[in-house]
Amino acid sequence: MLEQIKTISDLKKLSVKELPQLCAEIREKLIADVSKSGGHLASNLGVVELTVALHYVFDECDKIVWDVGHQSYVHKILTSRGENFSSLRSKDGLSGFPDCDEDQSDSFNTGHAGTAISAALGLAKSRDALGETYNVIAVVGDGSMTCGMTYEALNNVKDARMLIVLNDNNMSIGQNVGSATLNMSKLRVGKYDRNKEKLKKFLLKIPLLGKPTYRFLRWCKRRAKLGYVRNGYFDNFDLKYIGIIDGNEIKDLVYYFEKIKKNVVKPTVMHVVTKKGKGYKPAEDDPEGYHFVGRANAASDALESAAVVGDALVRLVGKDVPIAAVCAAMARSTGLSALREAAPDCFFDVGIAEEHAVTFAAGLAKGGVHAFVAIYSSFLQRSYDQILHDVALQNLPVTFLLDRAGFVGEDGQTHQGLFDLSYLSQIPNMTVWTPATYRQLSDMIEQSVLQSGPVAIRYSKYLLHDAREFCGKWNTLVAAENPRLYLLAVGARLSKIAASVAEERDDTVAVEVTTVKPLDNALLDEIEKNHAYALTLEENVLSGGFGQSVVCHFVSSGADVKVYTAGVNDEFVKHATVEEQLAQFGLDEKGVCERIDKILSNR
Amino acid sequence: MLEQIKTISDLKKLSVKELPQLCAEIREKLIADVSKSGGHLASNLGVVELTVALHYVFDECDKIVWDVGHQSYVHKILTSRGENFSSLRSKDGLSGFPDCDEDQSDSFNTGHAGTAISAALGLAKSRDALGETYNVIAVVGDGSMTCGMTYEALNNVKDARMLIVLNDNNMSIGQNVGSATLNMSKLRVGKYDRNKEKLKKFLLKIPLLGKPTYRFLRWCKRRAKLGYVRNGYFDNFDLKYIGIIDGNEIKDLVYYFEKIKKNVVKPTVMHVVTKKGKGYKPAEDDPEGYHFVGRANAASDALESAAVVGDALVRLVGKDVPIAAVCAAMARSTGLSALREAAPDCFFDVGIAEEHAVTFAAGLAKGGVHAFVAIYSSFLQRSYDQILHDVALQNLPVTFLLDRAGFVGEDGQTHQGLFDLSYLSQIPNMTVWTPATYRQLSDMIEQSVLQSGPVAIRYSKYLLHDAREFCGKWNTLVAAENPRLYLLAVGARLSKIAASVAEERDDTVAVEVTTVKPLDNALLDEIEKNHAYALTLEENVLSGGFGQSVVCHFVSSGADVKVYTAGVNDEFVKHATVEEQLAQFGLDEKGVCERIDKILSNR
Repeated sequence: MLEQIKTISDLKKLSVKELPQLCAEIREKLIADVSKSGGHLASNLGVVELTVALHYVFDECDKIVWDVGHQSYVHKILTSRGENFSSLRSKDGLSGFPDCDEDQSDSFNTGHAGTAISAALGLAKSRDALGETYNVIAVVGDGSMTCGMTYEALNNVKDARMLIVLNDNNMSIGQNVGSATLNMSKLRVGKYDRNKEKLKKFLLKIPLLGKPTYRFLRWCKRRAKLGYVRNGYFDNFDLKYIGIIDGNEIKDLVYYFEKIKKNVVKPTVMHVVTKKGKGYKPAEDDPEGYHFVGRANAASDALESAAVVGDALVRLVGKDVPIAAVCAAMARSTGLSALREAAPDCFFDVGIAEEHAVTFAAGLAKGGVHAFVAIYSSFLQRSYDQILHDVALQNLPVTFLLDRAGFVGEDGQTHQGLFDLSYLSQIPNMTVWTPATYRQLSDMIEQSVLQSGPVAIRYSKYLLHDAREFCGKWNTLVAAENPRLYLLAVGARLSKIAASVAEERDDTVAVEVTTVKPLDNALLDEIEKNHAYALTLEENVLSGGFGQSVVCHFVSSGADVKVYTAGVNDEFVKHATVEEQLAQFGLDEKGVCERIDKILSNR
Repeated sequence: MLEQIKTISDLKKLSVKELPQLCAEIREKLIADVSKSGGHLASNLGVVELTVALHYVFDECDKIVWDVGHQSYVHKILTSRGENFSSLRSKDGLSGFPDCDEDQSDSFNTGHAGTAISAALGLAKSRDALGETYNVIAVVGDGSMTCGMTYEALNNVKDARMLIVLNDNNMSIGQNVGSATLNMSKLRVGKYDRNKEKLKKFLLKIPLLGKPTYRFLRWCKRRAKLGYVRNGYFDNFDLKYIGIIDGNEIKDLVYYFEKIKKNVVKPTVMHVVTKKGKGYKPAEDDPEGYHFVGRANAASDALESAAVVGDALVRLVGKDVPIAAVCAAMARSTGLSALREAAPDCFFDVGIAEEHAVTFAAGLAKGGVHAFVAIYSSFLQRSYDQILHDVALQNLPVTFLLDRAGFVGEDGQTHQGLFDLSYLSQIPNMTVWTPATYRQLSDMIEQSVLQSGPVAIRYSKYLLHDAREFCGKWNTLVAAENPRLYLLAVGARLSKIAASVAEERDDTVAVEVTTVKPLDNALLDEIEKNHAYALTLEENVLSGGFGQSVVCHFVSSGADVKVYTAGVNDEFVKHATVEEQLAQFGLDEKGVCERIDKILSNR
């Protein structure tokens, strides 16, 4: 059946009774394709019925904004991208997130959590201003209810004609935290499902009267949910509340959406409960583990930076300096789950609340506990003001742990860690370290607690196994007898490439840059003394990045060193493999060799 | 009496009956001193009793975190800084905000709204980890209840032993907005005050029985407030709620604080209602106008950028491109109040919610309305991620209006607009314009609606009255027949200084830089052609700023132009006059002349 659904119009031709079959086929396709391509499996399995029902009931001109956006696979399959779906997350293939450039049915690009209601409200107000009539629907996971900006948006929805579908699976990426989030929905999926099923079975067993009674009760329940259920949390915002609806029950969803569509006047929250990983046993049992699955051929047993972070933090517990670590809903993927197990009192998961995470850490530090904040590079962008205003301004001893710095590969443009060197280096009092080896990462974590002010440590998911330590200086990986050019490489991948390139030449020095702020003046002096060129390599935008700070170092010291900078020049970077992304910007071995040849031939 | 209060110990020696007299004297001092020095008058007049009661009841080791911090004057007067109070906001004098470097009774530096609960929670958790016992108190205005990060913090308070004093004056800087904020406290100061006073008067008129009845009722009321009042908003977060308390009634405050101090186990919200501007008629009548008062000798009738912004926006209404403008609780000071009056449908005040403001604007733009976001440079830092992720990534037509860019003078380090050129320039698709004249500001606003992507316009409070227009190119203000050096000056103040310096010399060209991104290549080529030096002048940190982008332009073009950069080198800048701040960084006329002499003598 799925093969015949090329467009939304095809979907609308089906009867409601046919939809469960369609959902089953979509689920099969998801499991088959995502297992190969890698991607966000569990969340998409959870929203199959929800997505089908939305498109079945609402019109093509209506605008759906998917919060976070990693749950938009089913939407992509239904909106003309089913055939191309196996290209998901690969270069020139489908993005793993909504992308307006890809298809106009993607109403708004998302990636970071908590943006959907703000964006949808903007669309709704724009619609009203221009005299248009389309519906606007924000689909928001309960994890995003811990985001401050979701609250800011709810606080402003007021009279806007829009629908907010709260997709409640009782999870962020990990378990939800927070008092309000818990109170938002005291009825939870397990209990709710069991009771409903019990009643249904019981009634349908009764001959003659059972079925009509069941139908009558269902009618009553549906009317009640449409009209009379209150929710203290949403009452605060004067929103009409409809819930709780079983979000994996396609007929119910179609029924409620049809009622709502006819009658959306004031802003409405429809609270649906879905099961993350629904229909795929391993994912249902471990939704956090199956939140994201890697590509079929990816090595899964490799050491990751997160594991090293976890070990290093655990080792610090009970030492001279008291420590604590804070994460934003990602204990497992940042490595902090190890600390949670070993020393739960030192561990804080604040939910998807990056702003609070940082100022909370500032408070911890001010009170005498060295605080670690472990947030992916891209997500820490949300705390720029707090890093500057609450941590750096008071020069507080907080260590920021930025995993997924640099190119992140298949997650693409919303998740690239390509700005951190710039936004961190520009902040006074900040120190920025960039490990290339696991050992350096571990050393840096240990040494950061001895710093008097803030330190940011930025690294990629995988580092090098080499034994090189961190001593506060850059490392010369490959020397040259008659050096004509220094490669200054930031991070594991570029250090490795630099070393490999330099080994093939006798005029090139490869340097592993372990501190971006401050720079290593001794090594920069050596470049000057040798009358050599410098070529900086970084996975970061050039503006305000490492290369520019090297350029400006020599300009302000008056040294006559010619510096060339390689990095990302003022553009967003789409999904592809990390290797493809490096090649795209001339940062792979071939690209670096070409750059060197060009520089040296110009001499 | 105030003269005898040198320390908190002196305060504690007073009887409760003496406190109203002390409060009256503090109020007199505030009015007298702040009228001269300039500063936040209305909010401090409102919290006199609250601050006195806090210090009277709580201990010196207890930590009070003042949200926003502009209401900390009374705290400063009471904590050994009364004698020095007339130095408020002047160079080397007292800061207008809490400053740990100034006095250790300032527990945490604040300036931007919404940070106090996060910081206080950090302090409380730190205290528990280190086995200490002090109390932690966050004093938060109701305006900060619209901040997402306040919500994120409330959502995490859970079991922390701390007190949150909600200082409810029913205002942000302007009127509050937002549904939750309104629902948070349906009882408001006016009605509450009137009823209480009526009852009191009525009872006290009754002979014999009146006074005991009044006392009995007061006892009942106090017990009820301590134990039984519910507040739907705070119930969501499982917080103990005590309120509503008259925050200008010192005896009540002392009573409740004493009860709470004895018995703070779980996190408690004490909801007090204060009157902004209390005790000073003009400020009571116009609390927004008296939120901040200028220095006694400051010209108050000068044209401000905000007025030009307002006019320009009003002129755009009804033209070819539909527009809307968004502000974050500061309609008057951003100039948007003019638009609110002329075209209320095009105006949105979202409250102190900078994150939502930007993504909401992105939604407006995506829907077809050109959106303006008017937020001060320093406060827009909070939207860094939203500008990047929601606006720039989709290349949406949003115009950012950043007033108070560059040095802001007396507000000091938390409010400096010294980072925007860096954090904006590093974002792909972003255009950055920097008007020096009012005319240019107006032109830029008009021309920005024709841009296909985002534009940031950054300017200081006062610009130049000169008639120079904006044509997308830099302006040569003063030419030289035999140019040896080009001054490239960003913004009104530095353009004026550059022109003035160049006029006195025959070898120096003064250029007004109106576009920081992109640069004006033709003018940069001219510098190269003339074999001249360039000296960049900017009120911004050097890292990632304008000067560095000029340096890198020449480095990457291979042109042999020597560039010198003047700006703020990696430090936070304390309060002083703008002129003093310019001088501090060698950006005043004298400093610029010295730089030129040094550069040219080295030739």
